Amino acid sequence: MTSTIPRAKQWQQRAQSGDRVALARLLTLAERGGDEFAEVHPSIHAGNGRAHRIGFTGPPGAGKSTLVEAYALELRKRAQRVAVICVDPTSPFTGGALLGDRVRMNRLTLDPGCFVRSMASRGWFGGLARTSEDVADVFDAVGYDRVLIETVGVGQSEIDVARAADTTVVVLVPGTGDAVQAMKAGLMEVADLFVVNKADRPGVERVVAELEEVLQLRADGAHKPAIVQTVAMNGEGIDELSRCIDEHREHCAASGQLATRRAARAAEKVRRLLEQALRDRLFAGKGMERRIEEALQSSEPRSPYAVVRELLQELGLVSKETRKP
Amino acid sequence: MTSTIPRAKQWQQRAQSGDRVALARLLTLAERGGDEFAEVHPSIHAGNGRAHRIGFTGPPGAGKSTLVEAYALELRKRAQRVAVICVDPTSPFTGGALLGDRVRMNRLTLDPGCFVRSMASRGWFGGLARTSEDVADVFDAVGYDRVLIETVGVGQSEIDVARAADTTVVVLVPGTGDAVQAMKAGLMEVADLFVVNKADRPGVERVVAELEEVLQLRADGAHKPAIVQTVAMNGEGIDELSRCIDEHREHCAASGQLATRRAARAAEKVRRLLEQALRDRLFAGKGMERRIEEALQSSEPRSPYAVVRELLQELGLVSKETRKP
Repeated sequence: MTSTIPRAKQWQQRAQSGDRVALARLLTLAERGGDEFAEVHPSIHAGNGRAHRIGFTGPPGAGKSTLVEAYALELRKRAQRVAVICVDPTSPFTGGALLGDRVRMNRLTLDPGCFVRSMASRGWFGGLARTSEDVADVFDAVGYDRVLIETVGVGQSEIDVARAADTTVVVLVPGTGDAVQAMKAGLMEVADLFVVNKADRPGVERVVAELEEVLQLRADGAHKPAIVQTVAMNGEGIDELSRCIDEHREHCAASGQLATRRAARAAEKVRRLLEQALRDRLFAGKGMERRIEEALQSSEPRSPYAVVRELLQELGLVSKETRKP
Repeated sequence: MTSTIPRAKQWQQRAQSGDRVALARLLTLAERGGDEFAEVHPSIHAGNGRAHRIGFTGPPGAGKSTLVEAYALELRKRAQRVAVICVDPTSPFTGGALLGDRVRMNRLTLDPGCFVRSMASRGWFGGLARTSEDVADVFDAVGYDRVLIETVGVGQSEIDVARAADTTVVVLVPGTGDAVQAMKAGLMEVADLFVVNKADRPGVERVVAELEEVLQLRADGAHKPAIVQTVAMNGEGIDELSRCIDEHREHCAASGQLATRRAARAAEKVRRLLEQALRDRLFAGKGMERRIEEALQSSEPRSPYAVVRELLQELGLVSKETRKP
């Protein structure tokens, strides 16, 4: 295993000089996670902090892929190196069949100043948030100026991914009660910036009005999120979006929020990795799985709570006298 | 604490004879979780297994609340006792403002044979899946025939809630690429039954055709999910839905799948509770939080992976010599 580190350091150097194969190898290492990547991470971490990480999230069908592509093309005009991480909650039984959306990003994948990485949202060691953050770390370390992270879906883990960015953009479309639905999905409080995409459709004034009303409720004194109208399909509003994203980053850097946010992210990551390490130790091998099955399969129906208490006693984590489970 | 058990047993008995106040107390205990509920759970668990648990999930705006209400009213015609658990991912800064949807369930809350419980999806001790399952256990134990669990949203944790049922119903509406979006959201493989709601809208044939195409891909030899068209708003198709749900339950009971599924659910719950217990021990008090902050705030930027390795060493969970984190 120790041979990984010198190899990974070479990959990192080569990727810094534009070697895409070396970069792809490093990304695979990050996605795979585990002990190998843990060994390599300190050297990647040392090169982190320069890139601006921007998360894009919102309900399905909001046109996030098109928007991300349009924004990436705008950044390319300014000679920025752009990485895109697309998180696709691909269904296990359809495999990669849904990556069709990604075809639209073809204009990016042919550009040597761009790198698009698609990840399915399942089956990653240590969870989606861990993986996407480590992949972003790699892009940051090898010199990408912007890392765009797109998550499809509106679930908690998907929102966590978009939130693990310096700037989080929530994308909505005109439609009945869209802002209310976004609020329900917990999107409102993670947004640093709102995009109302497909703004050539009827109902756009209404979404904007709803958003403004809801933002009034937000009494936290933070930077008030801008609301940008775009038609990503033909590039309308993308320059304005770009300006607002830069503004948010500058505001955060000047106010010290960027540092606070990054420190909180690092602490959160330590917590998550610690939990994962404990989980791995607990369920290493098949012993615990067999023990759980056994404990549940007694002659009487047994409460999972009672079984947990028994297992914690066996693990020496709770004494037999105490009533606490 | 020991005084909770006799009280809870009284509540359980009273709730069984229709005392709604006693039931509400028991539900609050389940929601609160922790040691108290762990003490009480074995007696609740002993009364479990009779109720049919049905989960409803799907993208926001699919009309799940209306559908659940219509289905509950249908069950009431057959004199079944019906419990409804509504999981609302309420935004922390708007509080309960979004529970407006629930007002539509008024016809149920006035009916003594029905009990509607709304839960916000955040801030529950041990997670949403833990809470909703324990609440369902309570309803089951006190004699409800059907427990309907509705989750708004399409995220992983929301899907987990709907999946922790005997029958999982995925609700879609006609609209461009709805089936594809559902697939992306990971809904296809949890569905025992599909409802295409608002089936009076144009595009219904297309959704049904898309669904059937996708179901062809599912080569797992399981019960092929039925596709039911409804207009929940005026009750259309609800009798058919009711018939299909019963059919699924009968099929599962006859084939032994119901028992397998419930055993898997119990094992999953033990795993989750064990993890939670370990997490609680790890982060008990403020000691670990302070230690993480300290470890990250060194003069040089430190990789979270390096910090985790150090902390695991301090906890005695990894020896200093080993390279494994």
